[in-house]
Amino acid sequence: MKHVRSGRGRFLVFEGIEGAGKSTQLPLVERRLGDAGVKTLATREPGGTPLGESLRAVLLDPRFTGMSPAAELLVMFAARAEHLAKVIEPALAAGTWVLCDRFTDATFAYQGGGRGVDATQIAALEETAQGGLRPDLVLVLDVPVEVGLARAGRRRQMTMGFPAAPAEAGLARGMTDRFEREDADFFRRVREVYLERARARPEHYAIIDASADEDTTAERVLTTISKRFPYRRHSTRQAYEAGI
Amino acid sequence: MKHVRSGRGRFLVFEGIEGAGKSTQLPLVERRLGDAGVKTLATREPGGTPLGESLRAVLLDPRFTGMSPAAELLVMFAARAEHLAKVIEPALAAGTWVLCDRFTDATFAYQGGGRGVDATQIAALEETAQGGLRPDLVLVLDVPVEVGLARAGRRRQMTMGFPAAPAEAGLARGMTDRFEREDADFFRRVREVYLERARARPEHYAIIDASADEDTTAERVLTTISKRFPYRRHSTRQAYEAGI
Repeated sequence: MKHVRSGRGRFLVFEGIEGAGKSTQLPLVERRLGDAGVKTLATREPGGTPLGESLRAVLLDPRFTGMSPAAELLVMFAARAEHLAKVIEPALAAGTWVLCDRFTDATFAYQGGGRGVDATQIAALEETAQGGLRPDLVLVLDVPVEVGLARAGRRRQMTMGFPAAPAEAGLARGMTDRFEREDADFFRRVREVYLERARARPEHYAIIDASADEDTTAERVLTTISKRFPYRRHSTRQAYEAGI
Repeated sequence: MKHVRSGRGRFLVFEGIEGAGKSTQLPLVERRLGDAGVKTLATREPGGTPLGESLRAVLLDPRFTGMSPAAELLVMFAARAEHLAKVIEPALAAGTWVLCDRFTDATFAYQGGGRGVDATQIAALEETAQGGLRPDLVLVLDVPVEVGLARAGRRRQMTMGFPAAPAEAGLARGMTDRFEREDADFFRRVREVYLERARARPEHYAIIDASADEDTTAERVLTTISKRFPYRRHSTRQAYEAGI
């Protein structure tokens, strides 16, 4: 396993619209990579940094809901810069593979495609916050918007115990929930940005058909990862038998 | 006075190293402009916006002193974007002249010249946070570093009641105080950036010799302002007599 434990880790980002299955796939994939002997770290913004948590609290504070769009974008990237400097970079440097639930592509897709923020502006902030660092691989879990929204609706129904009625359900406050209330056109624009970005830089992106069941999608993701970044794959049983 | 009350206000920024006299000059100039019938607003970052105050608290929180330089810069510009959107822009639109104690030139001078942050990065953030908005006039109050530091030392002595010993005096925590502890070389670099920027865009900058006494400097500042942006100047007595 030395060939994956030594050297720099890989930075893998899971992206996709609501209901695409990111948050289900990420832990599945993490476990499978771990079983294969890869040292992994699962994270998502704000990444557990104290600064990031404070900035997140600021972004969600109802007193600031009218904040200027530029200020909101700058605060988001400040949290991202800190997540990168304090969590992601050190892990990669230690040889850990970082699996991140959404990153800058989500800003291009949601703030850019969805809300109309200028992509040039986002790109400039990406440069400031990240310097040269970009994900090694962005896994775009792709489903038609109708499929995603139907799944997201079911998930809310299951987890919150009342019938799905996204627009009126009085969801807990939070950015994700705010985004989930947006209409299908919004998510079509978001999806289109993900797909465009993936097609423009195929060496760093993979579009994964995520409309099948969880296990099928996980298999597709793992096959994609192992083709780009070969690691020794074997079943959990084999891993245990090998004493890993 | 209609010619200054109507239309868009002027955005005037006071800059300079510690001890140059910004914070003394700004209220003097504000009063004189007010006496002449100009509607003014004196402000400084974070400008009293709730978001700005929260972000300022984050920047000064000792838990975050190790924050990444990129995150610090992004948070600063987020506060600036909000100050601009919520305070400065509305005032200018209402015909008010905005007198601001430091703005983006201070970032170029202190973070750029002083701390070595890449000026290109600052310029990109300026674009994001401000769009096309720049000050109509940046008044660079200029004194030799030794003069500035000597004045700043005296000010601390007077206001804090103990002998000036900038490096060891156990000053109250704060960014300004942190900066004031820096050595003379730091301030020489800061001053040089101010002067370079002023020379590069003379139509939007004025270098004011601020080494004389307060009244002389104030007169120089007002002469400069009235040459660039003519307004009817008269003494306070005349203003009162005119019923303004």
